[in-house]
Amino acid sequence: MPELRKDPILGRWVIISVERGKRPTDYGSQVSKRKGGFCSFCIGNEYTTPKEIIAFRPDGSKPNTTGWTLRVVPNKFPALQIEGDLDKIGDGIYDKMNGIGAHEVIIETPSHDLTLSSMSLKAVEDVIWAYYYRIEDLKNDPRFRYVLVFKNEGEAAGASLEHSHSQLIALPVIPREVKAELDGARHYYDYKERCIFCDMIRQEIESKIRVISEEDNFIAISPFAPRAPFETWILPKKHSSAINPKDNFPELSVILQRTLRQLDKTLDTPPYNMMLHTSPFGDEDNEYFHWHMEIMPKLTKIAGFEWGSGFYINPTPPEEAAKFMKGAKI
Amino acid sequence: MPELRKDPILGRWVIISVERGKRPTDYGSQVSKRKGGFCSFCIGNEYTTPKEIIAFRPDGSKPNTTGWTLRVVPNKFPALQIEGDLDKIGDGIYDKMNGIGAHEVIIETPSHDLTLSSMSLKAVEDVIWAYYYRIEDLKNDPRFRYVLVFKNEGEAAGASLEHSHSQLIALPVIPREVKAELDGARHYYDYKERCIFCDMIRQEIESKIRVISEEDNFIAISPFAPRAPFETWILPKKHSSAINPKDNFPELSVILQRTLRQLDKTLDTPPYNMMLHTSPFGDEDNEYFHWHMEIMPKLTKIAGFEWGSGFYINPTPPEEAAKFMKGAKI
Repeated sequence: MPELRKDPILGRWVIISVERGKRPTDYGSQVSKRKGGFCSFCIGNEYTTPKEIIAFRPDGSKPNTTGWTLRVVPNKFPALQIEGDLDKIGDGIYDKMNGIGAHEVIIETPSHDLTLSSMSLKAVEDVIWAYYYRIEDLKNDPRFRYVLVFKNEGEAAGASLEHSHSQLIALPVIPREVKAELDGARHYYDYKERCIFCDMIRQEIESKIRVISEEDNFIAISPFAPRAPFETWILPKKHSSAINPKDNFPELSVILQRTLRQLDKTLDTPPYNMMLHTSPFGDEDNEYFHWHMEIMPKLTKIAGFEWGSGFYINPTPPEEAAKFMKGAKI
Repeated sequence: MPELRKDPILGRWVIISVERGKRPTDYGSQVSKRKGGFCSFCIGNEYTTPKEIIAFRPDGSKPNTTGWTLRVVPNKFPALQIEGDLDKIGDGIYDKMNGIGAHEVIIETPSHDLTLSSMSLKAVEDVIWAYYYRIEDLKNDPRFRYVLVFKNEGEAAGASLEHSHSQLIALPVIPREVKAELDGARHYYDYKERCIFCDMIRQEIESKIRVISEEDNFIAISPFAPRAPFETWILPKKHSSAINPKDNFPELSVILQRTLRQLDKTLDTPPYNMMLHTSPFGDEDNEYFHWHMEIMPKLTKIAGFEWGSGFYINPTPPEEAAKFMKGAKI
């Protein structure tokens, strides 16, 4: 019998096909190989990107030259434009506003061949620091209410450039999916006076069946109602509403890299999306929301049922996924 | 300057990239060709599918033999199972229930080479009647609260079999995306005492810029805030909360087939998803919701930004899409 499971935060249902339980190899190889060719993100090609916003330059080299270990640059083809006023406009029953926002690229390494799985731990930690610094800086722009940090790895997951990078988009509105999480968490808090994520973590640690790995301060789990097979969440164990160095970035880089290596090993270097969910600007310090990373390997297709219902069909139960990930020899 | 547009029903924002406005040919060919090979849905192979639920047999032939023009059969690999009780179970903070539901396939034509674009109008109308009959029948099962009818055309849109077919899934819960539409429409009705879809249709007919085509009783439009380039909605012009023959199925088949031919011509036979949104069981006759079809060509990828935010980036403004569709020589 398949199972219907409800995400406790969003109220989103998923169908877990217990019988047809797909093993990792059933998904076929989606492997995202590096092909090479000219790359704007490679060392020596700094002049081909927009001017850097920040960079880590341990050798004290000049901006937009070689010598960096990580660069943040504006997206050359931004989805939103940084200059201008918001100008909210009504048009009969419709609402629109100028597409004001920041769209930045975090070039995670000078090397074309490294990924978050294979670069040094220090480099992974620097990527997390870059996320944090950029969020802190964009907070000062009163036009923005949210920054979504995300990563597309592999062409099938939407990456148009193969050199390892993350992106962020600063938005003048709180996006629907984040708002739904905030509302769900607030609703639970109003009722229980506890953070729903904290309760979830406590239950997961007790039951163990969906825990993939732990550090002192972080946990990686297969969520109870995952949209996608092998979806994995990383959360700080202690309550923390917005991403913050006090949560321990060195440990976060350890668990993030381990999780990605486990995915690579289990699913033959799958394309994936990573999303960082943190509290919105102006509400960073609250008791109801708990920041976290969501990692979704791209193994299944979104089709009419998913579009029309917001339901997801997941052929690998998360308990199975956690077992495979834990067993991966990395 | 890009534009941020809000879907008035869902409050879902999309980014319309006005400058980078992509023309149809910029999306490349995704053409979904018929390859042939053994097909369970072809005439003569009736014995290879589960037993038919209903079929149209103008020659009075026997069930599960040749002679049919349309068949509805249970999905051989159902996402949900028809037999059993719901059994809602709590597990700490989590909720689950047995995966009870109906998963049926509407085989639209005996011919492997025809599609909704190329079959006869009578055959298209029969497909719509089949949707209607199945919804009406499943309504009698007290375990179900909603039936989602949908269609995946082309492999990239999630179709695993190429022979033209639609599907339906009957669910014991109202799915999230439908609930969000119902809530948005109810909210508007509480405030204005008018159906938001009726207001939208009135505004679209006045402004003309997003109207693709009209019949006396139906309209096809590019919605104001489309998730995907060339997304198209078909709605009855007069208020109607649930799909009903009184809305005029012959006209619906005309506008549906014309729309699909316009898409085929404009985008070189793209893969697409179609979803039917109608009022849930027990609330079929209401003043706030308006049933409709949503058609989404599969031209862009869902990546980290979309997963993490629920925002969509659409590189073709709907006004442009409507112009291309209207200009298609079909």
